[in-house]
Amino acid sequence: MHSKSKLRVGMVGTGFMGKAHAFGFSAAQKVFDLPFEIILEMVADVTVEAAQRAARAYGFNQFTANWRDIIESREIDVVSITAPNALHKEIALAAIAAGKHVYCEKPLAPLVADALEMTEAAEAAGVKTQVGFNYLCNPMMQLARAMIAEGELGEIRSYRGIHAEDYMADAASPYTFRHDPAGGGALADLGSHALATAEFLLGPIGDVLGDCHTVIGERSDASGTKRRVEVDDVGRAFLRFENGANGTIEGNWIATGRKMQHDFEVYGTKGALVYTGERLNELLFYETGAKTGRQGFRRIEAGPDHPPYGQFIVAPGHQIGFNDLKTIEVAEYIRAIGGQTPEPFNFRDGLRIQTLVESIHASSRERSWRSTPFT
Amino acid sequence: MHSKSKLRVGMVGTGFMGKAHAFGFSAAQKVFDLPFEIILEMVADVTVEAAQRAARAYGFNQFTANWRDIIESREIDVVSITAPNALHKEIALAAIAAGKHVYCEKPLAPLVADALEMTEAAEAAGVKTQVGFNYLCNPMMQLARAMIAEGELGEIRSYRGIHAEDYMADAASPYTFRHDPAGGGALADLGSHALATAEFLLGPIGDVLGDCHTVIGERSDASGTKRRVEVDDVGRAFLRFENGANGTIEGNWIATGRKMQHDFEVYGTKGALVYTGERLNELLFYETGAKTGRQGFRRIEAGPDHPPYGQFIVAPGHQIGFNDLKTIEVAEYIRAIGGQTPEPFNFRDGLRIQTLVESIHASSRERSWRSTPFT
Amino acid sequence: MHSKSKLRVGMVGTGFMGKAHAFGFSAAQKVFDLPFEIILEMVADVTVEAAQRAARAYGFNQFTANWRDIIESREIDVVSITAPNALHKEIALAAIAAGKHVYCEKPLAPLVADALEMTEAAEAAGVKTQVGFNYLCNPMMQLARAMIAEGELGEIRSYRGIHAEDYMADAASPYTFRHDPAGGGALADLGSHALATAEFLLGPIGDVLGDCHTVIGERSDASGTKRRVEVDDVGRAFLRFENGANGTIEGNWIATGRKMQHDFEVYGTKGALVYTGERLNELLFYETGAKTGRQGFRRIEAGPDHPPYGQFIVAPGHQIGFNDLKTIEVAEYIRAIGGQTPEPFNFRDGLRIQTLVESIHASSRERSWRSTPFT
Amino acid sequence: MHSKSKLRVGMVGTGFMGKAHAFGFSAAQKVFDLPFEIILEMVADVTVEAAQRAARAYGFNQFTANWRDIIESREIDVVSITAPNALHKEIALAAIAAGKHVYCEKPLAPLVADALEMTEAAEAAGVKTQVGFNYLCNPMMQLARAMIAEGELGEIRSYRGIHAEDYMADAASPYTFRHDPAGGGALADLGSHALATAEFLLGPIGDVLGDCHTVIGERSDASGTKRRVEVDDVGRAFLRFENGANGTIEGNWIATGRKMQHDFEVYGTKGALVYTGERLNELLFYETGAKTGRQGFRRIEAGPDHPPYGQFIVAPGHQIGFNDLKTIEVAEYIRAIGGQTPEPFNFRDGLRIQTLVESIHASSRERSWRSTPFT
Repeated sequence: MHSKSKLRVGMVGTGFMGKAHAFGFSAAQKVFDLPFEIILEMVADVTVEAAQRAARAYGFNQFTANWRDIIESREIDVVSITAPNALHKEIALAAIAAGKHVYCEKPLAPLVADALEMTEAAEAAGVKTQVGFNYLCNPMMQLARAMIAEGELGEIRSYRGIHAEDYMADAASPYTFRHDPAGGGALADLGSHALATAEFLLGPIGDVLGDCHTVIGERSDASGTKRRVEVDDVGRAFLRFENGANGTIEGNWIATGRKMQHDFEVYGTKGALVYTGERLNELLFYETGAKTGRQGFRRIEAGPDHPPYGQFIVAPGHQIGFNDLKTIEVAEYIRAIGGQTPEPFNFRDGLRIQTLVESIHASSRERSWRSTPFT
Repeated sequence: MHSKSKLRVGMVGTGFMGKAHAFGFSAAQKVFDLPFEIILEMVADVTVEAAQRAARAYGFNQFTANWRDIIESREIDVVSITAPNALHKEIALAAIAAGKHVYCEKPLAPLVADALEMTEAAEAAGVKTQVGFNYLCNPMMQLARAMIAEGELGEIRSYRGIHAEDYMADAASPYTFRHDPAGGGALADLGSHALATAEFLLGPIGDVLGDCHTVIGERSDASGTKRRVEVDDVGRAFLRFENGANGTIEGNWIATGRKMQHDFEVYGTKGALVYTGERLNELLFYETGAKTGRQGFRRIEAGPDHPPYGQFIVAPGHQIGFNDLKTIEVAEYIRAIGGQTPEPFNFRDGLRIQTLVESIHASSRERSWRSTPFT
Repeated sequence: MHSKSKLRVGMVGTGFMGKAHAFGFSAAQKVFDLPFEIILEMVADVTVEAAQRAARAYGFNQFTANWRDIIESREIDVVSITAPNALHKEIALAAIAAGKHVYCEKPLAPLVADALEMTEAAEAAGVKTQVGFNYLCNPMMQLARAMIAEGELGEIRSYRGIHAEDYMADAASPYTFRHDPAGGGALADLGSHALATAEFLLGPIGDVLGDCHTVIGERSDASGTKRRVEVDDVGRAFLRFENGANGTIEGNWIATGRKMQHDFEVYGTKGALVYTGERLNELLFYETGAKTGRQGFRRIEAGPDHPPYGQFIVAPGHQIGFNDLKTIEVAEYIRAIGGQTPEPFNFRDGLRIQTLVESIHASSRERSWRSTPFT
Repeated sequence: MHSKSKLRVGMVGTGFMGKAHAFGFSAAQKVFDLPFEIILEMVADVTVEAAQRAARAYGFNQFTANWRDIIESREIDVVSITAPNALHKEIALAAIAAGKHVYCEKPLAPLVADALEMTEAAEAAGVKTQVGFNYLCNPMMQLARAMIAEGELGEIRSYRGIHAEDYMADAASPYTFRHDPAGGGALADLGSHALATAEFLLGPIGDVLGDCHTVIGERSDASGTKRRVEVDDVGRAFLRFENGANGTIEGNWIATGRKMQHDFEVYGTKGALVYTGERLNELLFYETGAKTGRQGFRRIEAGPDHPPYGQFIVAPGHQIGFNDLKTIEVAEYIRAIGGQTPEPFNFRDGLRIQTLVESIHASSRERSWRSTPFT
């Protein structure tokens, strides 16, 4: 029995995204035929107890309360970072310096300057990187991009993108790290997904005009102390794409009732696409050429015709879920490490998103258009 | 048999909106108990033949090729103007001078200055006026407004409004009066509905930041001559409402596949409303107070609980249509003439919309925020 | 000015359906170019006051408390019957005997024997007849029928039809004429629509197997007296169509929450159609031949490509309503009187529906299949 | 570190359902806190090569071309059967005789007599059993059942259930084991799901009246030989539940365009539920008590309020998928083996479904109602 090379994973952080990463690594090798055998080698958390618990629950061989053990381990090939955002840079730079591939949850870093430093370090070291933007791994997103790229919609004219949820809608919900003036806010947290999707589908955004609003100006922190909130609860931008299309995006975390409104609408000369994140297995498609009186938006249901859906389920319409998107992301990243494909969303892509977010924030403050060249 | 006073209508213009007005007057008195008996007295068009044809088809007593016959007729109480936009002002001022009530199709006038002159003349004369914005007469719109006004959504925080269609999406479709630099464009034609709905629901807009795009820069006119197009095919604005809410609107007449995307989403502290003009008998409502695990957007279907639906149909869910909205508009206007209610959307309201449109256009040109005080 | 012949209408009954008929006659001649000028000549109700009120509200020239005045009037050409079901036969036979065309609300008669007598009388007299089944006049229904007839779905294999509402769901709602053992029940009242639609789309039903249930066995009448209920609250049938397709229908008036679930699904070898009466301007269409990975049910929105929508509104997607369906029905009937078209749903068609309903009732009682040959 | 007991799994069959089982065992212990550590110990397929390939792909320690190796292994605790239906009985009886727990894909056995033998053997041996009916593990299904059980819908009156797909719609698709007269057909394959859901929600079905149709009477087998088809392509039944409710189910594998129409509608005195398998994360709920004019079907989106959704994703609306349902099924079964819960759907439940299917087939042949007592 010919055996694959092993790829050993160390993971820093064991919260919800840690579980998602561990699950993704585990599932990816069951679902896909990957170039490596993946070994969950070591997991780190702040306390030994938490690390041990995670090791047992997710199946890591070793655990530690010192994340530097992962960096220093000669065995470990890939470092997964699901620790708090403020630690992303330090851990990532250490891992890169140790020659390890790095998989970092979003945001890559709260500030563009930090994201740039991380990106340049990774590129200089030649390691493979990945930032968690798994919505883009949805087969329906891949289909949308392919349809646009292949000209099925003709020339693209206008675009609307949204990512709205309501988890910050309650003014009594506490002040958290997401409210930190450095890198926090709805635009950074949710609008970033809308921006990633916009460029994923239509290519580079050339100019932005932002409009960001702090609606709930004060929240209590965990200790009950009132804290002033300066980050945006709603952040919007007008967009001009380099391909000539115009559009808008909105990030909104106080959209009462919305749980996953990651939506887009693309209008071209020959057709249109409409998608809502509330139904991640569907894509609506309109084409102008249909027979008279028979035209309409058709609801395409995800199926084996839309790779890699068929890796999960042989029959169409049975639906994949959010965790499956993470599995796809992991699989694509593993393939990139194996040299089979480009990374699906590497540090430079993550940097790009931070650049767009910062530009929109600055544009909103300055009340003027800004161009958003690639850093 | 006690008999109602008669209200005699003269109509200028016999095209599609003429048919809609005639139908609306006729239907209104069958559907509603109005304070007047309405008589379709005289209709005017450019030729005697067209006027005669309309008189016969729609049931007018008299016809004429000279619209001034209507103005000069002592019998006529109300003048309906469905003539080309460029004639609205002249006809309306003449009718007002003759002491007649005036019902003018939208836009009231292409330019704010003209709309203001018409409004002031009407107010000075004390006649009742109406501009055709019949989407607002939809019982579901009325319900949405009432729910917001009564606090069912709590404090309103954010808003999205759209009116998108695709009737100008084909670059080969001809140059028309809608492309005229004075008052033309998607924002004026469709965005005006989105603006009217926004203020109808949330009250005055305080500031706007516009972004308008000419996408199809050239069209051929009826004679085959190429004409440069300067008006917007897509017009958008960020909005700040006086009540503190923020939002956006978009007018778009090149949205391939869209036939009636007159949509809005309103998010408040206690609930949310979502509406699409593609389903004018439905309103989606989310309220935060529902039982745990039972929350969700509920689809309210129009019925007799939503006046004046019950005037049309005794049973819920059977659905009214676009023409019924016109009938409601006419009925409300007739009641206003009878002193029973305010006009649903008078000349000053029409002026307001033109003011908003011009402000957004100016803001887009100047790339800066503008306040939009009432004229 | 060449003038049309006049067609004078007499109407018996002034309740909700009376209003709908009067409105339909009035609207039909504004919306369509009909072969006659329609005159609302005389209206009859039980009391002079009610008749007078209706005359004034709906615009009839004369009123009477004796419906035989309408029969005896030499001027009247068409008699509209919206009186209680129990009177349909007597009035219709009198009108037919007087040589008048007859437009009868559904059901034609509660019993097949009566419906047959009425049908044969009308055919012998050569008058034009119409039974109110206006759902069939929906442009989307017409489209569905045409698509099936033209083979766009291939050979039809299976069918599901429903008409469910909830207006009898409350056990405290009173005993009415609809609960009368002769001709009452959900199958007769609502299932009849589902049956009409099924044959309208797929042609004759050959055999039925019924299953009917009385769920609320007792209701109080207007006087507070408990009455036993024997008619069905839910009536269903398996169907075998003569074209070889199989299917089901259900009539249900205790379907809590449903206001207009007049739905059908048709599955053929080459395509499928799905419709819900909750959205009467939409038809979902699936065709097998679409490009791989682009297949799906498309939502066709009613528009001018679907006659006679364009008579009402020039733009697609703006939506017609329930009352517009009545207007179409009236217009088609008037054209039939003018010899331009067949009657859309004449007495023989109405008889057919009663035959199917009675067969299903009998089948349910006898617990066995029954064939349903045309009477 | 206290360590869990190990539970060793042997799996027979490595096709699509084999992958799903292997994935489910693997995922279940990452997602849930289970009473055992699960070891994928041995996998069997017809050839050594296939078994080895599966062992490597899914992570089994051993592989074999002789399924009896699994039975004879003292180490193995649970046997997963995903082999062809015709082998279910032999393998299951052998595993039971060896004292192993047995997890068998549906159908438990094509014939009731066989299913009964298997069930009685398992019960006599005291082993835990499971049949794959994972749709029932959907949190939205669990919610629906709980809502009905807790009386949120009042007394249940009527029910509609469907499971329709189109994978046999093409008459050119080959004759397979699913067309085998013993146990094949759409009712057995898909209608079985509709029956399972119906009893899961409403409790025992008392009587059935079936109507089954062979639409495509001949198919070619793999060798190109024409084979007569006798099983149903569409199978329906009227249902009378023991709780007094009436209803219908349909199984249909030629429903062109349908990929996962596993739908139900439940109507009670106080509310209603509507579900479609096309959107497995949504449940529509209507309650009669809502405020006047605010009533409607609300769309509940799956979230952490609907266990065990929260084990997969911390945020609502992000959506689980088909494979996650399998993971839940496995987890529940493992817990049952650990004595924590009853089996979610054991052999007796699987037997029940076969009983219902056979009764409906017999009823259809005999054209008469049949009662369906528990075997």
